[in-house]
Amino acid sequence: MGTAGAEHSDLYAIRMAASYLRHGLTGTATFSLFLRGLPPERGFLVVAGLADCLSSLEGFRFTTEELAYLTAVAELRQSDVDALGELTFTGDVWAAPEGRLVFPPEPLVEVTAPLPQAQLVEMALLNLVTFQSAVATKAARCRIGAGGAQLVDFGARRTDGFDTALAIGRACAMTGFAGSSHVGAARRYGLPLVDTMVHSYVRAFGDEHEAFRAYATDFPEAPVFVVDTFDALGGVRTAVAVARELGLPPGRIAVRLTSGDRLGLARAARKILDEAGYVQARIMLSGGLDEYELARLSAAEAPVDSYGVGTKLGVSADAPSADTSYRLVEYDGRPVASGNALPGPKQVYRRASGDQDVLSRRDEPAPPGHRPVLTHVMRAGKRVRGKHSLDEARGRFERDLLWLPSSARRLRDPEPVGVRYSPGLTALAGA
Amino acid sequence: MGTAGAEHSDLYAIRMAASYLRHGLTGTATFSLFLRGLPPERGFLVVAGLADCLSSLEGFRFTTEELAYLTAVAELRQSDVDALGELTFTGDVWAAPEGRLVFPPEPLVEVTAPLPQAQLVEMALLNLVTFQSAVATKAARCRIGAGGAQLVDFGARRTDGFDTALAIGRACAMTGFAGSSHVGAARRYGLPLVDTMVHSYVRAFGDEHEAFRAYATDFPEAPVFVVDTFDALGGVRTAVAVARELGLPPGRIAVRLTSGDRLGLARAARKILDEAGYVQARIMLSGGLDEYELARLSAAEAPVDSYGVGTKLGVSADAPSADTSYRLVEYDGRPVASGNALPGPKQVYRRASGDQDVLSRRDEPAPPGHRPVLTHVMRAGKRVRGKHSLDEARGRFERDLLWLPSSARRLRDPEPVGVRYSPGLTALAGA
Repeated sequence: MGTAGAEHSDLYAIRMAASYLRHGLTGTATFSLFLRGLPPERGFLVVAGLADCLSSLEGFRFTTEELAYLTAVAELRQSDVDALGELTFTGDVWAAPEGRLVFPPEPLVEVTAPLPQAQLVEMALLNLVTFQSAVATKAARCRIGAGGAQLVDFGARRTDGFDTALAIGRACAMTGFAGSSHVGAARRYGLPLVDTMVHSYVRAFGDEHEAFRAYATDFPEAPVFVVDTFDALGGVRTAVAVARELGLPPGRIAVRLTSGDRLGLARAARKILDEAGYVQARIMLSGGLDEYELARLSAAEAPVDSYGVGTKLGVSADAPSADTSYRLVEYDGRPVASGNALPGPKQVYRRASGDQDVLSRRDEPAPPGHRPVLTHVMRAGKRVRGKHSLDEARGRFERDLLWLPSSARRLRDPEPVGVRYSPGLTALAGA
Repeated sequence: MGTAGAEHSDLYAIRMAASYLRHGLTGTATFSLFLRGLPPERGFLVVAGLADCLSSLEGFRFTTEELAYLTAVAELRQSDVDALGELTFTGDVWAAPEGRLVFPPEPLVEVTAPLPQAQLVEMALLNLVTFQSAVATKAARCRIGAGGAQLVDFGARRTDGFDTALAIGRACAMTGFAGSSHVGAARRYGLPLVDTMVHSYVRAFGDEHEAFRAYATDFPEAPVFVVDTFDALGGVRTAVAVARELGLPPGRIAVRLTSGDRLGLARAARKILDEAGYVQARIMLSGGLDEYELARLSAAEAPVDSYGVGTKLGVSADAPSADTSYRLVEYDGRPVASGNALPGPKQVYRRASGDQDVLSRRDEPAPPGHRPVLTHVMRAGKRVRGKHSLDEARGRFERDLLWLPSSARRLRDPEPVGVRYSPGLTALAGA
């Protein structure tokens, strides 16, 4: 997903770029990809997708095939096509690094480049940042809801396509999930692969005991028995019987519950396991989970060791997009106020102990005790060496999550961290 | 997105397949990918994603790299890895062709194949069908909401990745959208490319008249002026002035409104255009649209010629997934009832004039006057020659949309078409 043909653009962007080239509007522009707002049930946005953005910018060019198509349909002259064919991205990018938390109206990414280039990359940047940030935010909320229980990414089945499934796995890795069931995501992002089995296995054998025994014989290291094909608590007893039969240590086995009154079943399953001496056997729970249900189970002290979170995470069900916008804020040294976008290149300053960010002009110094959030990630079209790894993103996320005021962290009706404007920005916006 | 490594699977599916191979459970299985239910605001599901499914099944195999990873982490023996390395998909597939409407609990896809294969393709099928069908359904609802007005796909900006943007363009083409702003989607799916311009163009010039003149000079065939950078109705007057200045015929130009009281502004814009003699000039409207807002504007007889529909379509905002499930329904000649999945391979029969489908066993004849919905799309791992093109899918969609009872078509609290069980299925399910 990282690199792609420049045709992943709207026609208007290409025509506007061609028009800018014709009219000599090739001065330096700054566009701000910023967060216009948050839905009522979001107190923050986790930045994700930047690695893909940088790859896309580094690889930005039109292919011969794309140019032939544009020539045929886009009312372009040969000189336009020639100019577009030579175009690469040579600009600078400032961005909130992946894993950081941002609040409206802070920018996630700012692009400073010749106007035609800065316009052409709009769709790529919005596309790669918006959904990934929405899903990373949903994953972060699941972390909050789950308390200390482990979370496993089960999100790959009802997303769009394999690339999206991978992006979700990456967002889960960034936000501290303990593993993924998705082989492709686990391989790429170094997540522990988490196993289970599904009901069809039991049904294919036709007999639960026989199925459990076959599975545990084949994969004795850490079998996870799905126990509710017929009767959940009967399934727990079968799992214990098979573990005893095969001499599996209690710490190796787990049972998974997928439906019904899972809180009640988890408590009853825990009792059965404990009474059988399988105190260390783990309980996994899955099926339609989201942060709200995780919080309910956590508040009830459900005896659950790990949760498999799937569809509602993978589509960020209650807020499937994020309200991002890409706006021109400066052209040729002239600050531009575009609708609700504040003028000029910007910086976000944050205090370790503070509960209010400062949005300022990019060239203003940090207020005392504050540190910048936006970093210079691309210079003249080349990625700046730096901390772009997934591990580093995870570290930033964990630090920001600890810093986040509880009012912004709560799952229902949170209050995002406030953002005040610096004197310089206030003067510029009022001008 | 069509073909992909077999590692786009959950670990359990791979382990279960390996276990089946070890235990000789390689008999023929049928899995049904069916619609468990619909959210309250959905009366039907439009099937999409099948073309990608068939490509994925035809290309299904593990790469050497994937097998090396699985060997290292998945507790597999060399004999398992060898067997998986040789595995391809050799089964049969029955499916509701793309563009058709289905209702719970009808199947979208049924796979009949040796058990290990049928299990391994679960994630690929669920992934490729579920989201694409959800988005095609949202697009269809936008068609219904818009009445006869033209719709344009503006959905590429806040989806996940470029493949998803293309899938959305394809869903829009299937459901009768008039065009797309996305160059890549338009090129692949033969959609007319629809132009516009955005506010940053006006802001870069700094003067609306100058910007409009430059754009219309550069692209005189059908310029679409975004008129609300400063003042929407002032922008309409500027568009007329520029069209006059350049001698553009009224039928060539359009104005686009993006915010504010768009109904009132559209009416006022229409009046200005008409009074200026630009009766044929078109009005386009965009910004946060969905089927509900389209229906409101349509009911108010908004003088709008086309609507650009974006983010809420691209993520199917109010129902971002579909409740699909992939369940074993027959193994080795033995029907299997899996939770709420009815046993046995199935067929769906539909009448031209009917308002109730018949769900039957696959081998039952059609009830009088009924025709089958599921067709045999893959035989022994090879696609059956047939009507898989996007044009044919669009034709099927248009026919089914005309057939759809109004109670299932309405946007709020629709009633899905009822599904009764055939005598043969009733007997099997009761057995």
